[in-house]
Amino acid sequence: MIFVLKPAVPRFKIEAFRQQIEEQGFQTFLSTGTEHTVVCLIGNTAAIDMESIVQNNDIVEYGRRVTEPYKAVNRTVHPENTMVNAGGVIIGEGMFQIISGPCSVESEEQIIKVAQSVKESGATLLRGGAFKPRTSPYAFRGLHEEGIRLLLKAKKETGLPVVTEIMNQTQLPLFEDIDVIQIGARNMQNFDLLREVGRFHKPVLLKRGMANTLEELLLSAEYILSEGNNQVILCERGIRTFENSTRNTLDLSAVPLLKQKTHLPVIVDPSHASGLRDLVAPLAKAAVAVGADGLMIETHNDPARALSDGAQSLDLRQFQSLMADLKQRISFEGKQLG
Amino acid sequence: MIFVLKPAVPRFKIEAFRQQIEEQGFQTFLSTGTEHTVVCLIGNTAAIDMESIVQNNDIVEYGRRVTEPYKAVNRTVHPENTMVNAGGVIIGEGMFQIISGPCSVESEEQIIKVAQSVKESGATLLRGGAFKPRTSPYAFRGLHEEGIRLLLKAKKETGLPVVTEIMNQTQLPLFEDIDVIQIGARNMQNFDLLREVGRFHKPVLLKRGMANTLEELLLSAEYILSEGNNQVILCERGIRTFENSTRNTLDLSAVPLLKQKTHLPVIVDPSHASGLRDLVAPLAKAAVAVGADGLMIETHNDPARALSDGAQSLDLRQFQSLMADLKQRISFEGKQLG
Amino acid sequence: MIFVLKPAVPRFKIEAFRQQIEEQGFQTFLSTGTEHTVVCLIGNTAAIDMESIVQNNDIVEYGRRVTEPYKAVNRTVHPENTMVNAGGVIIGEGMFQIISGPCSVESEEQIIKVAQSVKESGATLLRGGAFKPRTSPYAFRGLHEEGIRLLLKAKKETGLPVVTEIMNQTQLPLFEDIDVIQIGARNMQNFDLLREVGRFHKPVLLKRGMANTLEELLLSAEYILSEGNNQVILCERGIRTFENSTRNTLDLSAVPLLKQKTHLPVIVDPSHASGLRDLVAPLAKAAVAVGADGLMIETHNDPARALSDGAQSLDLRQFQSLMADLKQRISFEGKQLG
Amino acid sequence: MIFVLKPAVPRFKIEAFRQQIEEQGFQTFLSTGTEHTVVCLIGNTAAIDMESIVQNNDIVEYGRRVTEPYKAVNRTVHPENTMVNAGGVIIGEGMFQIISGPCSVESEEQIIKVAQSVKESGATLLRGGAFKPRTSPYAFRGLHEEGIRLLLKAKKETGLPVVTEIMNQTQLPLFEDIDVIQIGARNMQNFDLLREVGRFHKPVLLKRGMANTLEELLLSAEYILSEGNNQVILCERGIRTFENSTRNTLDLSAVPLLKQKTHLPVIVDPSHASGLRDLVAPLAKAAVAVGADGLMIETHNDPARALSDGAQSLDLRQFQSLMADLKQRISFEGKQLG
Repeated sequence: MIFVLKPAVPRFKIEAFRQQIEEQGFQTFLSTGTEHTVVCLIGNTAAIDMESIVQNNDIVEYGRRVTEPYKAVNRTVHPENTMVNAGGVIIGEGMFQIISGPCSVESEEQIIKVAQSVKESGATLLRGGAFKPRTSPYAFRGLHEEGIRLLLKAKKETGLPVVTEIMNQTQLPLFEDIDVIQIGARNMQNFDLLREVGRFHKPVLLKRGMANTLEELLLSAEYILSEGNNQVILCERGIRTFENSTRNTLDLSAVPLLKQKTHLPVIVDPSHASGLRDLVAPLAKAAVAVGADGLMIETHNDPARALSDGAQSLDLRQFQSLMADLKQRISFEGKQLG
Repeated sequence: MIFVLKPAVPRFKIEAFRQQIEEQGFQTFLSTGTEHTVVCLIGNTAAIDMESIVQNNDIVEYGRRVTEPYKAVNRTVHPENTMVNAGGVIIGEGMFQIISGPCSVESEEQIIKVAQSVKESGATLLRGGAFKPRTSPYAFRGLHEEGIRLLLKAKKETGLPVVTEIMNQTQLPLFEDIDVIQIGARNMQNFDLLREVGRFHKPVLLKRGMANTLEELLLSAEYILSEGNNQVILCERGIRTFENSTRNTLDLSAVPLLKQKTHLPVIVDPSHASGLRDLVAPLAKAAVAVGADGLMIETHNDPARALSDGAQSLDLRQFQSLMADLKQRISFEGKQLG
Repeated sequence: MIFVLKPAVPRFKIEAFRQQIEEQGFQTFLSTGTEHTVVCLIGNTAAIDMESIVQNNDIVEYGRRVTEPYKAVNRTVHPENTMVNAGGVIIGEGMFQIISGPCSVESEEQIIKVAQSVKESGATLLRGGAFKPRTSPYAFRGLHEEGIRLLLKAKKETGLPVVTEIMNQTQLPLFEDIDVIQIGARNMQNFDLLREVGRFHKPVLLKRGMANTLEELLLSAEYILSEGNNQVILCERGIRTFENSTRNTLDLSAVPLLKQKTHLPVIVDPSHASGLRDLVAPLAKAAVAVGADGLMIETHNDPARALSDGAQSLDLRQFQSLMADLKQRISFEGKQLG
Repeated sequence: MIFVLKPAVPRFKIEAFRQQIEEQGFQTFLSTGTEHTVVCLIGNTAAIDMESIVQNNDIVEYGRRVTEPYKAVNRTVHPENTMVNAGGVIIGEGMFQIISGPCSVESEEQIIKVAQSVKESGATLLRGGAFKPRTSPYAFRGLHEEGIRLLLKAKKETGLPVVTEIMNQTQLPLFEDIDVIQIGARNMQNFDLLREVGRFHKPVLLKRGMANTLEELLLSAEYILSEGNNQVILCERGIRTFENSTRNTLDLSAVPLLKQKTHLPVIVDPSHASGLRDLVAPLAKAAVAVGADGLMIETHNDPARALSDGAQSLDLRQFQSLMADLKQRISFEGKQLG
């Protein structure tokens, strides 16, 4: 249940109202929009007399029951689009951002070369994995701390904000200077990690798990928002199905559906979705058209020698050529890159 | 294995060559492109000495082993895009066609009203179900022969070529004046039906089964082509996955992948894929961007009272507004509607 | 909605009651158990005053609303287990039957050799495909009419009732002497075929489609029963999932769930489910334990040379050894083979 | 690649051999069976001349290439069944163990009551969740440290070894007195956690992820074994499919397939697989028959009031009755409980 407050209610009155509600045994949280503040109740609210609360509290404009299990991420609770500030680059609300870079940071030369090239082509954020989740214990697992250091060096060289994946909460201190913390598909339901990034002060890029429904994705985002961090970007990256000619099946329906249900921005990763270099461009174009707020595209200076995910990485020239095309499409949609 | 013939080989020499191959125990078929004719061998060709055949037959330019199990639909065998002539409207190769109309033909008034409206909005073919496959035996199953008659009346009124679904081969005589015979998802592996439409003289719209891989779809098309009918349009309409917020999961990766592997045109049905009216527009836009050759979109003059699939049907005004947008996108892609 | 009649109501009174209901615009059908006859109504019964019908018709014991979309197959409507008489062998209700034989009938020698051997090992019905649905148009498709003839010869030699697959309704006249008509997974939603076998006078073995829910399987059975044929056996044979180490994923939960929801017998096909010879025995044992009414197991006199499905076929000795084990398990469950 | 050593080779010779191999740039690990020790090489071994290594090292009996990506868990590398010692109870190799208890530890009274009852019925290990992964941040998440304390109290009262789930590696110190550490389905690919439990000295129960293949499950187990802990039990608990009448689809084929590929014991959890109380008994029976080494079954003293998973929990009387049946089945299979 939510109570939408009248405009310009003083803070002390809001707190008094929350306290009154909490004394009845509910948790509450505030969702603050540009015009309205909303008080949201968590718990079994079936027995609450909503109308009498509205009548007895003159700061309340109206109440509404929220039937979905997710509250803070719910567009009903917070109708305006959330804008995420990723190191100065805005994701959401009319902007369209392109995150690009290698699957793994492999060396200083590699990450800086890729960073400079993708920036020149028009990418607005840099990705690069330092901690890599790998199916086999014997595969390359990233450069760890050194990878983070090199990524930050590439940021310094190019000015691009950086996105990189965290694998467990003990790594958080290493992410102090990272602009966006990525939670990968396999960790989408690592609930303790979600809570911890919810208490941290950095934007989070939350990827959909390969067997998770959209409702589960929204509830995982709810873990983060319910701890106080509303800077969350959702990412569709393909789900696991019976079809075996692609690595995963990209579910582009997820984009308009998520944007109906939540105020959070939604981006698309066509590289992991397909696992095939040739599909990255057509799927990226489709993602722009379907209404996404951005793309995450793997690029490598030498895909044939990449230590991970080479088969799905574009080389720098392919990325440049794709960007030229995407810029026109972003304009066509009335959105802005940068 | 295929043998690509030199240009302008006289027919009798081709037939002599085929006969020579068939005497060695193989089936053959011809695939005729604008420049080259290809002789394709079916059977276990492992033991054939391809090079000596090339050297001993001066009509042969070169030979190639085709490793995929599908031959006639294979782009290796027939590199040019196939154009399907659907009652005068061309599908494939730079054209983009939009098939629209109600799930079921319900009455003369309904089908003519919808046909006139979608034509005015820019649709280039009319759809309407006369024989409806329904999960429950107690649901509305279509008007049958009367539905076909009404559809043909709408064709006469508007000039739009018509597409309608066949459910079994005994119905074929009723399809003499239909422009495109649709084979639905549940019949994609009804192999006897595929053979029969392969012997019929009408274009076939073959929908992907909800649990079928792209290779299986291509092999089902191969059934039709191997009987002599190469006027086949493939249709992606969503696959069955664990995600339950949409009716099916639209697999847009299928479009560029199919277009790599086959010369047949590929269209997309966002209505059945999503089952949700609000998703039809964004998915239609994505389908244009991903490289499809057309769309199939359900429309109804009164969706709330539709006898089937109302929840996913656009009303006539929504369709008109979507068409205005799609026309710009089709131009953007350098394709032509009509 | 159903009305359960009092015992021993004369036929003419039942017909009068049905007529009275049908005059209100509903279809009805009778479901006849050993003690009670049930009149079942099809259509939107929301507005019917059930209680007043019970009070005004003294032949009615009580009424009940049936919320599931399937009626005739519903255990609520027909609480006793249905027994199917397959050429003298009873399937269901305390019996456990084993159908065995080759994927395809390949020759007289082969089918008779296999039939004699599986009979000796304890199989109670013989299977053998004459019309084979094959993914590729170039694969072996069965001996057709000749296959049926050979199967009937094997029946004559051994006395085993025979089960074979139909692919379309035009083949029905060939099935006059077949004991059980099989509808394969790919035809589970070939609704016209379902209707036709519903009007035919032979038991039907209906396999679950590889992407079909249990509710859809029950509705396909409903097609057959609603045409008057209640001699239907359901068969779980694996569903399509992301797991690729088996051909399909056998869903043994389907057995107890189906037996809760319907009165029809349920058997299991571990051969098609797994596609792997080594898994047939453990899955067959599990099927006995989970409560199935029978098994369908592919056997071949020479699996390495089988024209179809060799990799999943047991040889005759492996089948003999499995049968020795299964007989003990069938006894353990208190069921009877034969 | 593996090298199987001759019997009774002194330790120093083994170490010298490993060092020689590692100097060529490979990792190695030892797998010690009752008769043979095996040296396993990790890395790209394509260029190694296996035969010359065998000839030049007289402690080596023979070499073999291991094509699967998993090595330490591979039955080729370690042919004997692994027996896991879970607080004195042996899992694997002719034993059949039953783990039972509530989804969550809710109170001292509850866990002790359930523990005493399931012990009396014949369960051989006690389960109870202290840290609960929940889809929603607002659901009951367990009693945490207090839950562990109560579980250990129940262990003291009944003598049953205890199994409980860990959610992240920072919790490990709390698991010092726990007998088996469970890694849940959502954490199957939490690779950092797998490494940490691989370095800990406790048996691990590793559940299959709901969208993970068997090969991925084996590779996750490989993470644990490669760190030195070979006390791993695999658990099939259902995978996510399109079927929605059960919570998951139990994949019983996984049991015989896993037992072919690995030496680790495999158990089955019918409670989470089905999510339906009525299916637990038939699926448990099937799991015994299919060759599992044990079962994990949720029980509760008052399922209707359970704080989690009540719908799939048996009450204590239902469990008692199921155990009476299962004991006979375990004997039938020639296995031993306890």
